Amino acid sequence: MSTRQKLALLRKAMQDYHLDAYLLPSSDPHQSEYVAEHWNSRAWLSGFTGSAGIVLVTQNWAGLWTDSRYFLQAEEQLEGSGIQLMKINEDERYEDWMIEHLPPQSQIGIDGRLFSVSQADNLQDKLEPFESQIIKHDLIASIWNNRPKLSSEKIVVYEDQYAGKSSREKIADIREIMQEEQADVYLISMLDEIAWLFNLRGKDVAFNPVFYAFAYLTNEKAILFIDAHKVGSTVAHHLAQNGIEILPYAAFEFYIDELPKDQNILIDPATFPSNLCEIIQGEILEADSYIQATKAIKNEIEIQHLRQTMEKDGVALLRTYHWMEKTLQERPISEVEFGKQLSQFRSQQAHYQGDSFDSIVGFRANGAIVHYRAAPETCAQIQGEGILLVDSGGQYLDGTTDITRTIAIGKPTTEQKRNFTLVLKGHIALASIRFPEGTTGMQLDILARQFLWQNHLNFGHGTGHGVGFFLNVHESPPSISPSANRITTLEAGMIFSNEPGFYKTGEYGIRIENLLLCVADKSTEDYGDFLKFETLSLFPIDYALIDTSLMTAKEMAWLNRYHHEVYKRLSPHLEEEERKWLELRCRKV
Amino acid sequence: MSTRQKLALLRKAMQDYHLDAYLLPSSDPHQSEYVAEHWNSRAWLSGFTGSAGIVLVTQNWAGLWTDSRYFLQAEEQLEGSGIQLMKINEDERYEDWMIEHLPPQSQIGIDGRLFSVSQADNLQDKLEPFESQIIKHDLIASIWNNRPKLSSEKIVVYEDQYAGKSSREKIADIREIMQEEQADVYLISMLDEIAWLFNLRGKDVAFNPVFYAFAYLTNEKAILFIDAHKVGSTVAHHLAQNGIEILPYAAFEFYIDELPKDQNILIDPATFPSNLCEIIQGEILEADSYIQATKAIKNEIEIQHLRQTMEKDGVALLRTYHWMEKTLQERPISEVEFGKQLSQFRSQQAHYQGDSFDSIVGFRANGAIVHYRAAPETCAQIQGEGILLVDSGGQYLDGTTDITRTIAIGKPTTEQKRNFTLVLKGHIALASIRFPEGTTGMQLDILARQFLWQNHLNFGHGTGHGVGFFLNVHESPPSISPSANRITTLEAGMIFSNEPGFYKTGEYGIRIENLLLCVADKSTEDYGDFLKFETLSLFPIDYALIDTSLMTAKEMAWLNRYHHEVYKRLSPHLEEEERKWLELRCRKV
Repeated sequence: MSTRQKLALLRKAMQDYHLDAYLLPSSDPHQSEYVAEHWNSRAWLSGFTGSAGIVLVTQNWAGLWTDSRYFLQAEEQLEGSGIQLMKINEDERYEDWMIEHLPPQSQIGIDGRLFSVSQADNLQDKLEPFESQIIKHDLIASIWNNRPKLSSEKIVVYEDQYAGKSSREKIADIREIMQEEQADVYLISMLDEIAWLFNLRGKDVAFNPVFYAFAYLTNEKAILFIDAHKVGSTVAHHLAQNGIEILPYAAFEFYIDELPKDQNILIDPATFPSNLCEIIQGEILEADSYIQATKAIKNEIEIQHLRQTMEKDGVALLRTYHWMEKTLQERPISEVEFGKQLSQFRSQQAHYQGDSFDSIVGFRANGAIVHYRAAPETCAQIQGEGILLVDSGGQYLDGTTDITRTIAIGKPTTEQKRNFTLVLKGHIALASIRFPEGTTGMQLDILARQFLWQNHLNFGHGTGHGVGFFLNVHESPPSISPSANRITTLEAGMIFSNEPGFYKTGEYGIRIENLLLCVADKSTEDYGDFLKFETLSLFPIDYALIDTSLMTAKEMAWLNRYHHEVYKRLSPHLEEEERKWLELRCRKV
Repeated sequence: MSTRQKLALLRKAMQDYHLDAYLLPSSDPHQSEYVAEHWNSRAWLSGFTGSAGIVLVTQNWAGLWTDSRYFLQAEEQLEGSGIQLMKINEDERYEDWMIEHLPPQSQIGIDGRLFSVSQADNLQDKLEPFESQIIKHDLIASIWNNRPKLSSEKIVVYEDQYAGKSSREKIADIREIMQEEQADVYLISMLDEIAWLFNLRGKDVAFNPVFYAFAYLTNEKAILFIDAHKVGSTVAHHLAQNGIEILPYAAFEFYIDELPKDQNILIDPATFPSNLCEIIQGEILEADSYIQATKAIKNEIEIQHLRQTMEKDGVALLRTYHWMEKTLQERPISEVEFGKQLSQFRSQQAHYQGDSFDSIVGFRANGAIVHYRAAPETCAQIQGEGILLVDSGGQYLDGTTDITRTIAIGKPTTEQKRNFTLVLKGHIALASIRFPEGTTGMQLDILARQFLWQNHLNFGHGTGHGVGFFLNVHESPPSISPSANRITTLEAGMIFSNEPGFYKTGEYGIRIENLLLCVADKSTEDYGDFLKFETLSLFPIDYALIDTSLMTAKEMAWLNRYHHEVYKRLSPHLEEEERKWLELRCRKV
């Protein structure tokens, strides 16, 4: 069926339900970063396969909003479809388009599962002055033939030796918070929260080891809503041992429909599906997820594993760059080949489970595209002179990694060295700071930007995100960012990325990323307890790109200490030739 | 009448009105920082005269909550009164006291004029779960005999040559915002907003050149509610010229009672009196004050005046320190005498109108008390060795100043020098930063703290506040602070104090404060427009307290540039002996 035919079917259904417009987002009912094909009705309808986009359909118009990294791809894929490309940050926003082009008192259809409570409320608030309203009705189910089924991959038990805490203990911790907050029932929809709480992992989406499920928790009961064929006997035994019952995935909706009216039902409005919220009959308590807040504080076992995992990950990186250097003497290497080789070296490390996201390998101008993904047909060849930016990570049973290094192939320019050094100075300022308890990520963010700002430069993304433990590489609530939406108090045990960058469009990109562990520093009588960061990631920073005349003695001391640690920790795992390669790059300067 | 007798009268009145408790705060109906005696029923009832405190009275108990700077004074003044001292940050808060000690469904009386809409709402929200409620009723009017009258000081016109913009123009600017925001009527209660909008000044309270009034603004009308005897013919002429009508102060309440129901009435809930909000019959629009936001951006004339005023203020400071040094060779000087002499030298400068707040002159341990106020009987003598902290400011027709210097008398210790230098490094980091538009004061705050934090030190106040132009020395919304309550975007034309400090209880206090003007820096294509600060205040920073080994070359360069500027700007106004004094203190290091 062509997109035009699909649009015709959708418009017919819209007429039947008296809908003036219909919105298809890129999400699933769990607000996942990676979405199973089953949920991607936006891609099915439009033919546009990029990861981000929303389609709006009216009786006589259709548009797809996506961001700059997908403009080219969307233009090609939408050609002849009857769907117009709308450019985010250039064209008007889709909410504004609706307000301008739809008559007052319009009815706008959505699949209520795919919009969280907050998203649906915000949209309704914007339409309110025009007396337009959102109608939650899934029109896609009836017109999508041969819709991909949800994965039937079996889920697995995540052993306590890695998780550091049994599911029974985690459930007890969350129940304690529920009692303090007078929540009788906790309804959980985020996939990584469920995987963490029940010590389970799955393979239902790319990169994140999660599985499609819902969860229900009271002081007496814990129920996992998952399809039975995904649960083998080992998992069944684990669930029984931890006091967790099983019901089918689809039963969640009917189950919460019958919750008693006199109970306090806790949900996280940022992620809970809006259609399910509507059928709750009890008193709804809206709160930031207790599980996210608890999961963000890594336990001692997780931290110990992670330190080890960083050594494995550093060795895989080292082997890749070492291989590249030798190979470049004979032939160019494509960005895609570099990425494959990196995954290959990671996969040789113990407990490797896959990559934690699609590696970003950007040579020269490609490095300046923040979400660049090299494609086999179009990607650049690494050769001659230029800056190479590589952002990658691994999923291991014993932890999740995320590291970016920027290196010079051949001789860098003075400007490149200056800008790299400004980024590095910001990276070091954040890595070295001590701060009193109660400090927020918003306060710290400027440390990583200040040297770029002094030169009227900046970077257009946050400085740091939280990272899961053998879970999602992007995890809330930890955040180091200027955004007022994300004012998170830093706590010992939280993991953050430290990734300032600089991007010169059409020329090169720079980013230096290590993972940081927030740890206790000194307790003082007058100023409370101080915290600091331990840098976890282990790989040398390219001396060729550093202009040491811009560095202070303290910054050089940090760099020397860091390289000393990298050498000490990685060298025992290396062959002699590799060890020499590392020794040179970790020499004291 | 004794406090016990006054309490008895109040309790009788509480019975008549079925009130279980009565609250007396330290505010006036305009949420002023300095309050006329007429409004200070808390001081009248309790006998406690400190600037901050709230009294709670029940039938069988009464307590006064105040903060640590007033514990001693309150203890003395409350002795035998039947009112118990409750220590803020040590004892439970008064809201919690009420919840714990009053039965559910209690009725708590307040004078609704003295609580802003937000304050009253917050209090009611806390009491809600206990079904207790606030009853707005003034019981004090009927029992306070010989209550001080409000000041009958005449108000004066503030000439356009200083204000830089006529009242007519300012009114037009505010009307434009009102139209954009669809506000039909703007009700204004903050005294400095009224003084600014109508280009008037008064002498009704200490330090702030404001007067008791309300204002009413629509697209057609502007009304000043003020008692007629305060308005002379010059002011009357000025008001007429600018299209401003006059009605009596007390008429404001009756006037807003009769506003049409179909109008949008704008108030700032943070400051508008809660009792007046209740009688509004139209649709209430709550918004942060448009006038505060507009007033915060100083115009070119104000800025030019202020640069000049800083020279006068620096000269007054110089003469005081110069006098002190000479006098100390013969005899000690008391903190109070130093403060008086400083005011004396300020008063010799052109257009001096008074001090902008009570000078803080703290020698040795007194410098560590952040809100210290030297009293003639108890203050310290400046003599021997020790650190002297002086925070002071002047009100001039052509601007308001606020400056803190910390100097060493005799030889400072190594620790004192280190801590002064850490404070100075923070001061310089904030003074030197460049930042893109959209940056908030919360983001910048850490620049001033980072060096103290690295040494596990901190200071317990914000880094910077806004400053009025011949108006209140503390002005919102500009703020550089870690507090999430005050996320203000910095804009060119805003004035900020830059005042990091360090306080060692029982030993000494350090604070270095200059005023900063936010100015345009460079416009960039990729990263938007950048802003930076121009340091306005002009007075040398004491070399004797600087450990230059802790300073970077860039920091030393800033200091030399600053001292060069101080010398260049102040020296033309000085006698030869003074010039030499300054030359030595501004020498290049």
